[in-house]
Amino acid sequence: MQTATSPKKYLQEYNQIRDWTLQLCEPLQIEDYVVQPIIDVSPPKWHLGHTTWFFEQFILKKYMEGYREFHPDFNFVFNSYYESVGKRVLRADRGNLTRPSVEEVINYRKYVDEAMNLFLSEDNSTHDHIPELLKLGFNHEQQHQELLMTDLKYILGHNPLFPVYSERIERDGNNGSSKLNFLEIDEGIYHIGYEGEDFHFDNERGIHKVFTHRFQIADRLITNKEYLEFISSGGYKNFVYWLQEGFEFVKVNKIQAPLYWHMIEGEWYNFTLHGLKKPDPDEPVTHISFFEADAFAKWYGMRLPTEYEWEVAAGIYTPTIPPGANFDDKKIFTPRPISNNYQFFGDTWEWTNSAYLAYPFYSKADGAVGEYNGKFMINQMVLRGGSCVTPANHIRHSYRNFFHPDKRWQFTGIRLAQHI
Amino acid sequence: MQTATSPKKYLQEYNQIRDWTLQLCEPLQIEDYVVQPIIDVSPPKWHLGHTTWFFEQFILKKYMEGYREFHPDFNFVFNSYYESVGKRVLRADRGNLTRPSVEEVINYRKYVDEAMNLFLSEDNSTHDHIPELLKLGFNHEQQHQELLMTDLKYILGHNPLFPVYSERIERDGNNGSSKLNFLEIDEGIYHIGYEGEDFHFDNERGIHKVFTHRFQIADRLITNKEYLEFISSGGYKNFVYWLQEGFEFVKVNKIQAPLYWHMIEGEWYNFTLHGLKKPDPDEPVTHISFFEADAFAKWYGMRLPTEYEWEVAAGIYTPTIPPGANFDDKKIFTPRPISNNYQFFGDTWEWTNSAYLAYPFYSKADGAVGEYNGKFMINQMVLRGGSCVTPANHIRHSYRNFFHPDKRWQFTGIRLAQHI
Amino acid sequence: MQTATSPKKYLQEYNQIRDWTLQLCEPLQIEDYVVQPIIDVSPPKWHLGHTTWFFEQFILKKYMEGYREFHPDFNFVFNSYYESVGKRVLRADRGNLTRPSVEEVINYRKYVDEAMNLFLSEDNSTHDHIPELLKLGFNHEQQHQELLMTDLKYILGHNPLFPVYSERIERDGNNGSSKLNFLEIDEGIYHIGYEGEDFHFDNERGIHKVFTHRFQIADRLITNKEYLEFISSGGYKNFVYWLQEGFEFVKVNKIQAPLYWHMIEGEWYNFTLHGLKKPDPDEPVTHISFFEADAFAKWYGMRLPTEYEWEVAAGIYTPTIPPGANFDDKKIFTPRPISNNYQFFGDTWEWTNSAYLAYPFYSKADGAVGEYNGKFMINQMVLRGGSCVTPANHIRHSYRNFFHPDKRWQFTGIRLAQHI
Amino acid sequence: MQTATSPKKYLQEYNQIRDWTLQLCEPLQIEDYVVQPIIDVSPPKWHLGHTTWFFEQFILKKYMEGYREFHPDFNFVFNSYYESVGKRVLRADRGNLTRPSVEEVINYRKYVDEAMNLFLSEDNSTHDHIPELLKLGFNHEQQHQELLMTDLKYILGHNPLFPVYSERIERDGNNGSSKLNFLEIDEGIYHIGYEGEDFHFDNERGIHKVFTHRFQIADRLITNKEYLEFISSGGYKNFVYWLQEGFEFVKVNKIQAPLYWHMIEGEWYNFTLHGLKKPDPDEPVTHISFFEADAFAKWYGMRLPTEYEWEVAAGIYTPTIPPGANFDDKKIFTPRPISNNYQFFGDTWEWTNSAYLAYPFYSKADGAVGEYNGKFMINQMVLRGGSCVTPANHIRHSYRNFFHPDKRWQFTGIRLAQHI
Repeated sequence: MQTATSPKKYLQEYNQIRDWTLQLCEPLQIEDYVVQPIIDVSPPKWHLGHTTWFFEQFILKKYMEGYREFHPDFNFVFNSYYESVGKRVLRADRGNLTRPSVEEVINYRKYVDEAMNLFLSEDNSTHDHIPELLKLGFNHEQQHQELLMTDLKYILGHNPLFPVYSERIERDGNNGSSKLNFLEIDEGIYHIGYEGEDFHFDNERGIHKVFTHRFQIADRLITNKEYLEFISSGGYKNFVYWLQEGFEFVKVNKIQAPLYWHMIEGEWYNFTLHGLKKPDPDEPVTHISFFEADAFAKWYGMRLPTEYEWEVAAGIYTPTIPPGANFDDKKIFTPRPISNNYQFFGDTWEWTNSAYLAYPFYSKADGAVGEYNGKFMINQMVLRGGSCVTPANHIRHSYRNFFHPDKRWQFTGIRLAQHI
Repeated sequence: MQTATSPKKYLQEYNQIRDWTLQLCEPLQIEDYVVQPIIDVSPPKWHLGHTTWFFEQFILKKYMEGYREFHPDFNFVFNSYYESVGKRVLRADRGNLTRPSVEEVINYRKYVDEAMNLFLSEDNSTHDHIPELLKLGFNHEQQHQELLMTDLKYILGHNPLFPVYSERIERDGNNGSSKLNFLEIDEGIYHIGYEGEDFHFDNERGIHKVFTHRFQIADRLITNKEYLEFISSGGYKNFVYWLQEGFEFVKVNKIQAPLYWHMIEGEWYNFTLHGLKKPDPDEPVTHISFFEADAFAKWYGMRLPTEYEWEVAAGIYTPTIPPGANFDDKKIFTPRPISNNYQFFGDTWEWTNSAYLAYPFYSKADGAVGEYNGKFMINQMVLRGGSCVTPANHIRHSYRNFFHPDKRWQFTGIRLAQHI
Repeated sequence: MQTATSPKKYLQEYNQIRDWTLQLCEPLQIEDYVVQPIIDVSPPKWHLGHTTWFFEQFILKKYMEGYREFHPDFNFVFNSYYESVGKRVLRADRGNLTRPSVEEVINYRKYVDEAMNLFLSEDNSTHDHIPELLKLGFNHEQQHQELLMTDLKYILGHNPLFPVYSERIERDGNNGSSKLNFLEIDEGIYHIGYEGEDFHFDNERGIHKVFTHRFQIADRLITNKEYLEFISSGGYKNFVYWLQEGFEFVKVNKIQAPLYWHMIEGEWYNFTLHGLKKPDPDEPVTHISFFEADAFAKWYGMRLPTEYEWEVAAGIYTPTIPPGANFDDKKIFTPRPISNNYQFFGDTWEWTNSAYLAYPFYSKADGAVGEYNGKFMINQMVLRGGSCVTPANHIRHSYRNFFHPDKRWQFTGIRLAQHI
Repeated sequence: MQTATSPKKYLQEYNQIRDWTLQLCEPLQIEDYVVQPIIDVSPPKWHLGHTTWFFEQFILKKYMEGYREFHPDFNFVFNSYYESVGKRVLRADRGNLTRPSVEEVINYRKYVDEAMNLFLSEDNSTHDHIPELLKLGFNHEQQHQELLMTDLKYILGHNPLFPVYSERIERDGNNGSSKLNFLEIDEGIYHIGYEGEDFHFDNERGIHKVFTHRFQIADRLITNKEYLEFISSGGYKNFVYWLQEGFEFVKVNKIQAPLYWHMIEGEWYNFTLHGLKKPDPDEPVTHISFFEADAFAKWYGMRLPTEYEWEVAAGIYTPTIPPGANFDDKKIFTPRPISNNYQFFGDTWEWTNSAYLAYPFYSKADGAVGEYNGKFMINQMVLRGGSCVTPANHIRHSYRNFFHPDKRWQFTGIRLAQHI
């Protein structure tokens, strides 16, 4: 199904992606690699090992002749949730494992990388599944690059010393200052789902038709300044804007602002990867739950878009990503140009009002790979777009991200819509 | 918006519905009215009071001149979840309230019924909202009639003495024995939502268009016999059929069969309202969670229908319910004819694979009534159809019932579908 | 070991005690018999059944020829915690059982009472254990009479309607108004434990010697007035008076006053069995945890007595209870004379600073009876004395009551002591 | 109250103790310093910081002129439970703090050590409290040395890779092989509590008299072999040996053997600081809860001694520890001679059947130091003796260690006693 790629290009991409994971960890101290302050946040060390295990488990052990596994217990330690490949450390216990040490995990990476280099430099065309597994492995590692960033932000951001990850800023955020305009989309039948021959996940597969009534959708995300108005007008205290589970959630957890916001001597501060700052009024608000996004939209008198509306609008208003943009490490943590043409991606993941469910022609793959997406299709909401820590080639119209409605540690934001 | 109904007819309907609630309680002993074995199950006494409170709170106190409230604390005791009408007993504490006694609650009903009779026998055409509120109150009480039945089944069914509610059987169930046939529906744009001038809830309002690909849908529900094959083939133990949260759910709660099934000396027994019996192989399986319905469908090689597919199919294959069927108390707990023309309703609520979310043109009503449906639109799945304890006039194509995917105490079942 | 008692006297005592249990229930409505608002509080219906089961299980089924058990499932329903007599309803589920109904339980009582009357009217001298088991059954039932009273106070006192149990007052409480005097006890070796030939529990058995340093002990309990000073001086907020687990307990549970105290429009009210009243300043404070008793004592600059100090002081300052006082139903809920000679008993149970542990020569009985006391000897504190709802013949110097330090639903109070 | 000690000797002791803490950490990798797998187990890094904070907070900041605190946030980070010195990190969050890094904590130690060296080399005789505070700080640090060892054993022992701490063995254990003999102690009044002028805690202060009946007490601890008999005879399954809370504890937590024992392919293995080994039959069993110790004793037909019996027996049968034994780092993790003269100390802490409560003349110190012991006097049991990881000068007759009855991560064992 995929276009043919030369072995050399795979090798190059493999090394580029694997290396980028390590570059992301450069500002960390050894201690930062180990902990798991909440169950959602995995230790950075675990991400390093788990992404490595993926290549060892699904490619090397199956397809490389004479490959000797690095350590017999690492399947137990670094399997995430694949029931089909054996027992594993309880998710809640990831942060209790001081061993293998970071150094051992780095050695594990090196060992697997060397084997993969050997394997990829040879002709492996006899194995039909290799290209697919490689692509999956690349995308898997890139997803974990993003999780790594959100997880280490959580680790640093919940430390009373508020350590800085990097002095470079997360984004420029100059798009927020403009007036909120709305793009109008006519009613009609639209094609939804991934179309093309590049990598994509099974959950976005299967072009299918969806009917949408006429609607309008904002041309930018909601800013900190706009969100502050919601806060200061008592939005968190007034049940009329809230889903009942959402109101319970903010009451029980005493939530009064986005995650990482701290009221210090009467003023709001916002922990970012470059330290504790006052919230930039023009930046998109981020680190909010679906519940908060939904309540904000209701307070504003609008609603969140469905994932179909989002995909349709993004398809119309965004030019195709140029082919050369496949992997651009500078995108991450350097200012990226925000133009009218690119307004749907790259600031935050955008909560939609669509539950994460199967597309009409969805069928999950056999074996462990089939556990990648399908078994999570309950109680989660779809997010579209991509954030400042999303690898560039994960940003596409059809990409379906998903989280439970109470999750706040991802870079998540708000785009408004309404029927007209 | 509603067709004009004569005051006399309202009065008659009021008394009919109110009386039916009491008739449902007839087999109970005083003790059965009091307890709340799980948070979902409200004490029957509470249902009696809460439905009464609804008429007192929203009609008598607002519109009847000179009405004197029965007891100043009953708003606190019998408000369910309406934030806009003041504080209320914590839901989990409903089963701790021995007072007001059943007798006092019955007196409360009589007092309110007398006031309502007085009120309805006069000309109240000056109040525009009365017809709407009445209809809502009737439907509200009928919903609670159904909950009353499911709740008292839970109370009796979790007692080690397994008390019989009634010797009359729940249903005839003779439809299950037939071969499973499939109805085919062409792709196209279909109209979804309530159309007409009778009562309906805000969540089904707003006719809108939905595109559906070609699919087929079963002409009957899955039977106990078919479900037993799923059990005996190890379906509960094999993760490949399960959503991850579902597999966790059955493991943690040691679930191996539908609720009310008991393995006694090597044989399955099923607690029903008429006692503990062996499961009838031809009856529809019921009291299963969404997780189990979904796992069964996957094990079978199919899927659950979406709520749109269900509504389209039901609209095509079911003749309009005759007008005279508005209220038929005999429907409940007496065998009802199951014919090809009526196959979509009346056995169990049918889990769909649609999350409970707002329709495109949904807007919630002002005030307390607006808290009826909208604030629950998260983390729940839609059920369609209606069960053996659903009042007949609640059975309509557009009716959207909703529960969390782990709930099992309602009469819930499985209908299969697939794309073709 | 016991003095010989004529069969007739046993019969008379049996009927007197059994009847008193029912008299205590007279003010209840059926609904009040059913619920279990917290795990500690058993439904009154359960107490009625459990005390009956005790006689059926340990006497009738074992020793009465031809006795036919009332219902095969009642062992399951009414066994409390005896592992040696089979499975039982989970303690937390007692309040979910609407059946057997109150009427059936009363019939169960009648059935067992008739059998017991038959059994006791015959010569059963061949069974050596009968006198012991009878005495145990009587005392067991009386303990449950007390629990019945504390449990139904909890049930009524946690109802928003605050129903009155009885207009008769709980106690006269005129002893509190006096100045707090202290009795002095010289250092020495004292004999501790039950001495005599009447009924007593295994945990108080085995006279043994204990050395006590010179100390003084208050001649009356702490009053509501004195406790209010502790509250108003911020005693609940200042950690220095508190055990660490106690401070955590009051913070987490937002405790700021004794159980049943309610701050209503700026004034304290106290729910009693005769309704909601302002706390009588001269009555002993009651319904406090050990944590609160201990914190009060530290705030006062003293401490709680040990159980040995209490027993020694009570033995010196209290005249022997006259033999005729064995059973006096009027003691309960009628004013009882409080004199200098009787100052150690009958107002509240008094928290001591002794953990509930085995006496030196303790050995538990064989079989189910051995599960009565010994297995609870951990994490509980001893209380001495007896309260206004304690049957009179349970009031003796050597009686060891015990509860976890956070329990407040018993009638518990404070007596101060210190070394001198 | 203390004997005069020359400043130079304080300095020497300070440096010796502080250095030993670091030596204990030598085998650790950076990652091992960070985690907190259960709430009881603090991260080694936290122990290093907290013991340093103790000297900074209670000596340097109060008594050293011109001292500048190392970091303003470290009081928040390293305060353990002292309410009187401000807010602190929640205990459960200690394992989420990756910063300050180990290196920074080491720098903190160096900074404080330098200041302390300066401070102690000067004449500080003007401050009366210094000698007391120093002694407290030394003993505090030594207590944390022990906790450090038990905590890191837990961290390593719960890692699936079972990392070895040190190849040196924990103890020789050759005492277990002997027959179990009993020492007899006559009844009488004995003096209990600390007597002398060396350091001791407030909870052991105040010589007082206790009467003890004649009893016998074992001359050695129960061995693995003896404990295995308890296991293999079904001791964990038979409720008759257990306190009710203990039986619940082992059932809920599926406990069937001491902590660190693993059943691997039908054989028991025991994780020790030198790796996973088969349990040495002659070594004392260790890492058991009070519940297990108590159940074993009942199964054996005996009981645990009270803390008074233990102290009396140890005082009679153990020669005074020679003065030169004050601090002997070789004691830890090197074989120590076990002789008849030394039989009460140094293998495991020994559970007694005494609750941890105040001695008759106990009064807690003012200020933060008063929070050291007194506020824990509830729901804990006393342990006597000392273990293989207890600093030698903490081993004394009067030392009262205390833990909740379910704790197993300390080195805890069983000594039997009975009345005769």
